[in-house]
Amino acid sequence: MTQQQDRYLAIKTLGEKVKGIRTAMLTTEHDDGTLISRPMATLDVEFDGELWFFTYADAHKVGDIRHDQQVNLSYVNEHDNRYVSVSGTAQLVRDRATIDELWKPFLK
Amino acid sequence: MTQQQDRYLAIKTLGEKVKGIRTAMLTTEHDDGTLISRPMATLDVEFDGELWFFTYADAHKVGDIRHDQQVNLSYVNEHDNRYVSVSGTAQLVRDRATIDELWKPFLK
Repeated sequence: MTQQQDRYLAIKTLGEKVKGIRTAMLTTEHDDGTLISRPMATLDVEFDGELWFFTYADAHKVGDIRHDQQVNLSYVNEHDNRYVSVSGTAQLVRDRATIDELWKPFLK
Repeated sequence: MTQQQDRYLAIKTLGEKVKGIRTAMLTTEHDDGTLISRPMATLDVEFDGELWFFTYADAHKVGDIRHDQQVNLSYVNEHDNRYVSVSGTAQLVRDRATIDELWKPFLK
């Protein structure tokens, strides 16, 4: 398989695994080294390798991500024994067009 | 309240919040800075401020904890909207008496 096919398959598999799990736990590293997690509402959009979340600009996690972009997302569904860990880097985006595109009233 | 009472209450509250959640996601930091989580079976023992888990001595997470003791445990129960984050330091214990005391066949 080509690298592109590999990536496509990996994204497809991950998308299927996290499907229907409405809330992920986002773990970030605080500037004192502490690891902190909190629930984040997932967005019902087709997964293409990026996961998007809304938060307030002054939230602690935003400071954590400024300090260290490494994050973990865990998706848990006890009923069908799904435990998914996603390691990645977070990026803070404050783009009006993206916000308008992704915002859903249920996120309030 | 005294500091001891504070601690007692905090432990009691946390114990109640995580009660009945059989699997926690344990997040550790790999030596390249990546944050990784995996499910860990919880032990059905009275919570006194310490949480115990069994693992293989050669598991990746053991290496991660040798590298960095900071860990996060998240406890999720979607049904009653419980999302609990526990930040702490992990310690590797290889004590036969503790193992015998805590080991339950369901952990196999």
